Amino acid sequence: MSTIQDVARQAGVSVSTVSNVLNGRTDRMRPETLARVEAAIGALGFRPSKIARQLKTGQTPLLGLLVPSLANPMYSFIAREIETVAQERFGYRLLIGSAYRDPAKEAAFFDDLMAHGMRRVIVISALADEQHVEAAAARGMVVVSYDRRATPGQPSQVCHVMPDNFEAARLATQHLIDCGHTRLAFATVAGLTLSRSAKIAGFRAAAEAAGLGASAQVVDGGPLDEYGDSVIAEVGRTLGARMAAATERPSGIVALNDLMALGLMAGLRDGGLRVPGDVSIVGIDGLFLSALANPPLTTVQLPVREMARAMVERVMNPLPDADIDERDIVFAPAGLIERESVAPPGPAGEARTHESEPDKVEP
Amino acid sequence: MSTIQDVARQAGVSVSTVSNVLNGRTDRMRPETLARVEAAIGALGFRPSKIARQLKTGQTPLLGLLVPSLANPMYSFIAREIETVAQERFGYRLLIGSAYRDPAKEAAFFDDLMAHGMRRVIVISALADEQHVEAAAARGMVVVSYDRRATPGQPSQVCHVMPDNFEAARLATQHLIDCGHTRLAFATVAGLTLSRSAKIAGFRAAAEAAGLGASAQVVDGGPLDEYGDSVIAEVGRTLGARMAAATERPSGIVALNDLMALGLMAGLRDGGLRVPGDVSIVGIDGLFLSALANPPLTTVQLPVREMARAMVERVMNPLPDADIDERDIVFAPAGLIERESVAPPGPAGEARTHESEPDKVEP
Repeated sequence: MSTIQDVARQAGVSVSTVSNVLNGRTDRMRPETLARVEAAIGALGFRPSKIARQLKTGQTPLLGLLVPSLANPMYSFIAREIETVAQERFGYRLLIGSAYRDPAKEAAFFDDLMAHGMRRVIVISALADEQHVEAAAARGMVVVSYDRRATPGQPSQVCHVMPDNFEAARLATQHLIDCGHTRLAFATVAGLTLSRSAKIAGFRAAAEAAGLGASAQVVDGGPLDEYGDSVIAEVGRTLGARMAAATERPSGIVALNDLMALGLMAGLRDGGLRVPGDVSIVGIDGLFLSALANPPLTTVQLPVREMARAMVERVMNPLPDADIDERDIVFAPAGLIERESVAPPGPAGEARTHESEPDKVEP
Repeated sequence: MSTIQDVARQAGVSVSTVSNVLNGRTDRMRPETLARVEAAIGALGFRPSKIARQLKTGQTPLLGLLVPSLANPMYSFIAREIETVAQERFGYRLLIGSAYRDPAKEAAFFDDLMAHGMRRVIVISALADEQHVEAAAARGMVVVSYDRRATPGQPSQVCHVMPDNFEAARLATQHLIDCGHTRLAFATVAGLTLSRSAKIAGFRAAAEAAGLGASAQVVDGGPLDEYGDSVIAEVGRTLGARMAAATERPSGIVALNDLMALGLMAGLRDGGLRVPGDVSIVGIDGLFLSALANPPLTTVQLPVREMARAMVERVMNPLPDADIDERDIVFAPAGLIERESVAPPGPAGEARTHESEPDKVEP
């Protein structure tokens, strides 16, 4: 590869003149000189090294993106949106890491970004304890954290972008209530991220407002194996099968997210129940996969594109001060998409009676 | 942040001594000196800059990964597997780009990698024309290309890793034949990548071997909008609805991949047909999503983990010479997973007769 020295030699100018051209300082340059340098750059196929440039500016045009797992279609969908905005608007490319919601892996990712001269990162994790994220910000990184609020009462150097998870779950629950369901459940996984807590609160608020708080229950499918592929869908499937086998069950379920809902539907089917004939289900996210499900999944659509744009813009143009209120950007859900996974509850309002055994004839 | 000079000052040694420690040249060093330098590194929390190191070595511990679109669950699944091996075995992180199978976008990605000092890239694209990929290899990049063979008869500097797409489609088609299907179709999208061509050839080979070559047809759902989210599933859905509306249709369909199959199932349902009652479907890939479908999708499982490992190992440890035969690594499918989307064809072996109109009583 040719160097800046080669270009200077070929153009018959000094290295600093070439450097001025490369850095756009051409206003006092004679047009012939500029033309000679540009011709030499073209003839030699010279490409200025981004490494050399970043050593000077201390900045690399790479944006870090930390996700729980790329194998989860929701995160890869958000990642693609973030990539599009970062590339098209700012010319940045993405350095992506899956950290499986492990704070140690997340901290190691921040270290690597720092060591590479990268100073901007978007974190999708929503862990309740964000100390390691704040630590990265304190060391000079611009950090945008997705899907959780700043910890109340604690000063934060991190910008938070999130959907209104409370409202999303409230909307989903209200839809079931409007369809006549009175035995409600919220299906989640073990472990409380802030986004999960917010959704549970929204579920409870809707149930209580309808006077159904006493019977509304939160059911927990158990811990996630974050390293797995199907992960949350598999937890949903196990939970669905468990609910199908139980003698009492809710008639309407709000799932933590669409993948959980798809798993629940499969598990209820495995257990011989029909959706929505026996159990109605509402998801949260609005993945394209939900429209392909059988029955197509009713779900609360989150404004993923708009959130992605906000995250990239905020990480590229951070606010000058550390005012916590300004740093939180909350997006209302785009709305409920009614498809076919919700129907009014059956007449008895009870768990479906399995085939009754034929009466035994007394001898 | 502390510098190498700070460490030297704290330890009371020269900068070159610290450099020797950082680069493992400690065999002639006095143990006390080594201990003092290590203590200073620890006390100051010194981290050597990877930028400075890569300027010396000309290498950055980042691996480029080019995919058609991260929003496609198959590519994000492969990406996660590649990431795991690159990180755990080699300490490399991933710089990922979606290029939507656009050669200009792919070339721009290679340029950016070069400018960042990155010399290793895995390309998932399978475009028929790979000149821009060969050009990147000629400029000194180590390139592994996924899902296509080297162009026959042309020297290549690129290592190709792929599933045996011919065999995968042959296996899927043979399964339909074994279940009694005689009217077979292969459902694909417009535009021939090498992997698509190989699958079509495998489909035709199985049909011809069973004497069904004359009726076996390739149906094309039209062009992909690579920028879309659901992309190939949406093409499948439209195609499924079109097939449902036609008077003649195949009884068994092999889909280009699982996402296409999920879309086909939705489209056939939209058109009032049942899978597998009216039409049987087999996918190729083995996405976890296929197991969640209703009915669960019968599919040919590709060995994604093994292929990801091979790609990373080959891109990290390239072969010394350019022997084309050595550079192609073909993986047999892991096998057919029988689920519930295939059944014997109906008795008539004809398109399902819609409800016949009641006989008209003659006046």
